[in-house]
Amino acid sequence: MTTLAFLGLGAMGDPMAAHVTRHARQGGHRAQVWNRTASRAHAHAQAHGSEVASLEQAAQADVIFTCLPTSAQVDEVLTVMEAHLKAGAVWVDCTSGHPQAAAAQGQRLAARGVTLLDAPVSGGTGGAQAGTLTVMVGGPADALEAVRPHLAFAGKVVHVGQGGAGFAVKAVNNALLGAALWATGEGLAVLSRVGVDLHAALDVINASSGRSNASQNLIGQRVLTREFPATFALGLLAKDAGIAADLTGSVQGSAPLLAQTAALLRAAEHLIGADEDHTAALKLIEQMNRTELN
Amino acid sequence: MTTLAFLGLGAMGDPMAAHVTRHARQGGHRAQVWNRTASRAHAHAQAHGSEVASLEQAAQADVIFTCLPTSAQVDEVLTVMEAHLKAGAVWVDCTSGHPQAAAAQGQRLAARGVTLLDAPVSGGTGGAQAGTLTVMVGGPADALEAVRPHLAFAGKVVHVGQGGAGFAVKAVNNALLGAALWATGEGLAVLSRVGVDLHAALDVINASSGRSNASQNLIGQRVLTREFPATFALGLLAKDAGIAADLTGSVQGSAPLLAQTAALLRAAEHLIGADEDHTAALKLIEQMNRTELN
Amino acid sequence: MTTLAFLGLGAMGDPMAAHVTRHARQGGHRAQVWNRTASRAHAHAQAHGSEVASLEQAAQADVIFTCLPTSAQVDEVLTVMEAHLKAGAVWVDCTSGHPQAAAAQGQRLAARGVTLLDAPVSGGTGGAQAGTLTVMVGGPADALEAVRPHLAFAGKVVHVGQGGAGFAVKAVNNALLGAALWATGEGLAVLSRVGVDLHAALDVINASSGRSNASQNLIGQRVLTREFPATFALGLLAKDAGIAADLTGSVQGSAPLLAQTAALLRAAEHLIGADEDHTAALKLIEQMNRTELN
Amino acid sequence: MTTLAFLGLGAMGDPMAAHVTRHARQGGHRAQVWNRTASRAHAHAQAHGSEVASLEQAAQADVIFTCLPTSAQVDEVLTVMEAHLKAGAVWVDCTSGHPQAAAAQGQRLAARGVTLLDAPVSGGTGGAQAGTLTVMVGGPADALEAVRPHLAFAGKVVHVGQGGAGFAVKAVNNALLGAALWATGEGLAVLSRVGVDLHAALDVINASSGRSNASQNLIGQRVLTREFPATFALGLLAKDAGIAADLTGSVQGSAPLLAQTAALLRAAEHLIGADEDHTAALKLIEQMNRTELN
Repeated sequence: MTTLAFLGLGAMGDPMAAHVTRHARQGGHRAQVWNRTASRAHAHAQAHGSEVASLEQAAQADVIFTCLPTSAQVDEVLTVMEAHLKAGAVWVDCTSGHPQAAAAQGQRLAARGVTLLDAPVSGGTGGAQAGTLTVMVGGPADALEAVRPHLAFAGKVVHVGQGGAGFAVKAVNNALLGAALWATGEGLAVLSRVGVDLHAALDVINASSGRSNASQNLIGQRVLTREFPATFALGLLAKDAGIAADLTGSVQGSAPLLAQTAALLRAAEHLIGADEDHTAALKLIEQMNRTELN
Repeated sequence: MTTLAFLGLGAMGDPMAAHVTRHARQGGHRAQVWNRTASRAHAHAQAHGSEVASLEQAAQADVIFTCLPTSAQVDEVLTVMEAHLKAGAVWVDCTSGHPQAAAAQGQRLAARGVTLLDAPVSGGTGGAQAGTLTVMVGGPADALEAVRPHLAFAGKVVHVGQGGAGFAVKAVNNALLGAALWATGEGLAVLSRVGVDLHAALDVINASSGRSNASQNLIGQRVLTREFPATFALGLLAKDAGIAADLTGSVQGSAPLLAQTAALLRAAEHLIGADEDHTAALKLIEQMNRTELN
Repeated sequence: MTTLAFLGLGAMGDPMAAHVTRHARQGGHRAQVWNRTASRAHAHAQAHGSEVASLEQAAQADVIFTCLPTSAQVDEVLTVMEAHLKAGAVWVDCTSGHPQAAAAQGQRLAARGVTLLDAPVSGGTGGAQAGTLTVMVGGPADALEAVRPHLAFAGKVVHVGQGGAGFAVKAVNNALLGAALWATGEGLAVLSRVGVDLHAALDVINASSGRSNASQNLIGQRVLTREFPATFALGLLAKDAGIAADLTGSVQGSAPLLAQTAALLRAAEHLIGADEDHTAALKLIEQMNRTELN
Repeated sequence: MTTLAFLGLGAMGDPMAAHVTRHARQGGHRAQVWNRTASRAHAHAQAHGSEVASLEQAAQADVIFTCLPTSAQVDEVLTVMEAHLKAGAVWVDCTSGHPQAAAAQGQRLAARGVTLLDAPVSGGTGGAQAGTLTVMVGGPADALEAVRPHLAFAGKVVHVGQGGAGFAVKAVNNALLGAALWATGEGLAVLSRVGVDLHAALDVINASSGRSNASQNLIGQRVLTREFPATFALGLLAKDAGIAADLTGSVQGSAPLLAQTAALLRAAEHLIGADEDHTAALKLIEQMNRTELN
């Protein structure tokens, strides 16, 4: 019997942990959950049959999942759990973390005989609920194979490289999301200023070569409607684009468009609000152009 | 019986004119073609049953299509044809033209009783051959309705606004194509420098929120294979991004990411070559990062 | 006896016209002035002994100076004056105009036998009052030599090329001013966030390789003091950076940093206010970074 | 009697160490030198009367100066010297280092009772030879006062803040140098494409508001002459701009123009050559615009 522990029951973690729990119970395995605000853990246990655990208890699991806002929170729980870890365990970090953090955390865990896989995800809250997330994994292939059956929240699992590679791909993916979102916002703002109907324009773009997931699934549904449903915080998208920029600098790379994206998203975070939905970044474009996207 | 004339039988115009001809002949209408290099017009007549016409003859048509590299070439043929135009005709310009040019050309045509529709397309040579192009139209709605039946190369026709709006949407669409292409190239270049497998990374991105038409249909197929098939010239993409930048300036707009895209594509045009496929822009990113995308 | 007419008595034009008047009167020449708001012209005549003239009267001058906000206002007065111009006259446009406008205006004037010199200036209101402006001139050398004695507001006159070259150099100069101003603002904002004393930092920069006119004469005096005295409008600086961007596009050039500068200044114009002093652009940087520069 | 040790006798360190030695000997103090390539240390001793020392010997000094290419080299010598350091000593690092490195190095030194001052300089090899460098210092004020008399290479010493502040100001200063250099290069490239005489244009800019140290002292003298004398490597300037970008990210700042500068300088490093003079970055602008700056 394998004991699995899932730490972090936020907008993504809660449904992900539900899938892990359901699958674990079907297989006769044990599923524990932990959350900083304990009431969410109790609610999860109530709804899905998982077991509420303390960090020290969760530290004894065979497979530990973390799904926290940033690498800093992972460092915090690791500090509490470190002394209690079980050699041979695998730690699967689904946080959109920093590759540099993965290196340091990997070393701390290795000292305890625990293998770290950086395994961030894409697909949003919808994908988490449906269990169709894409998971990009960095770390040893054998550790991935050992935990693969338990990745019940995933529709697609791709091994992208050594430790840190998962975080790297995630950061780049989110920087690309940010770039497409912002660029499309700029394009629509300009079209708005020249009197073009934005719904017709977006309809065309989405049937043309300039389309993207951002233009097809986010802008019409969240920006033109003015709804901006808060599913993925602007501050977190800005953080991810910042990680991609750091990664570029760490290899003396040159990525001017992605550097620009990171800077503009940080500006939007400060001017519009870190807790707004990431699509609300386009409110800054509206202000920069004295127009409205609707 | 309606006479239709199609001017410009390049990579896009040739198959587009073939669809117009086929549909015209089915309806008992007359289809003429013209090309600067006359042999292509003769070949088209041979293959599709269109009639070779001079510019003066084509000027007498009820519906005139132009599909030329830039607005400058449209100005040239208009100068020759102007005196021979028939009042009541509609001129459908499928060139990826400049909104400012549309304004001037529209006035010259109006003086002859001819209505201009700017009707650029998206879908590439594949879409042109299949007759599934997206057409974004600017100009009077009644003129569009009059010619709509003859847009046989189109899978989707969207009226986006007044004269110039079609060119504006096309320029923005192509700037967005350029932005997604370049940004994804930057992201892969950085991942390459940190040792991530690019095929796995692209696989993930294309199943994640950062995906775009560029990442799904161009980069894997043309860049990672190193084939760079020449279907849409880098110089033309750079021109289109430049038109979007001009448009932004004309309304005192602020579009930093699209401005950046235009500048970088111009740099690639000069460093890599204007006649290379547009995806070859990523060769500049490779040089900027001392890496190869494969 | 030469008749000189000076059109446009704004913050720059008023003192410039005073120098022209003083020098003209010393030489026994005639100095006329015109302003859209006629009272300023009367006040100038009162203070400096110039003669108030209508546009039709000024059109008869041997040397006509214009110092208006943009090329659009020059077009307006030219339309009124065109029919009354005297062949052999020289028109000296000190407006920070658009090279494309210079070409069109030059043709209209040539049709009347009048030579256009684009002669924008740098040195601010201080330089205008002191008569030490730098004048960058485009157009025929002989026309420049003919008017050179009358450029009494100038400390330095440089012939930079053919018609339009003066406007081109002015636009680039102002784009460089904007770039240095904005970049230094960004640098100080970051230093402020890491707790560095900005007065000490600026002191160092101004004694180091990163110094510029902007860092030495504007930021300490106008931004750190929070005074932002309104001597040169942000909207006009944004316009000039936009002209430099247009110029770049017109030769298919690639100038990513200057393109960025233009976009950011336009954003600041919209978010902070077109009539604020150009140094108030840095208020946007403060908002983008949640800090204050003081 | 104070023992001073100077480590790193490169283009900057060699003349700086000469000033330290001269001043030390005048005051009856002892001056030691070390260089990775020992022959330079012997040559220095021969020319200036300094004493050649090993790292272990230099570790015993009261004041230790380092002037190495990057923080990585400082880490290396620190590792060798750590065990031999004398409590109460002051370590003055004139390297253009990384603020994060300063924090780590400061802790290692503090553990030995040694105080670190980050004290990078500006003024180039000319300023180093003349002893007129500007030094920007981070760290405790009392430590700075203790060593101030020995900063014989300095014309101006400014205390800018706590530990790391010196490196922060240096990085920002150099990013501003890079921005002005690159932006002016772009401006001249565009003017060159429109047929403006670059010497006349630069003459105007240097008498106008867009001037900077870069435009006044570098471009005419090194670029237009095509001499590009190698005094400060492009790779080092790119590194410095990268540090400024990292610093921005570390405080979630938004500095789009400086981010752009760092990316473009990295591209130039890779395309033109890391060991070329920093002004050779403009060769990339020439290639991006198919023009030459002369």
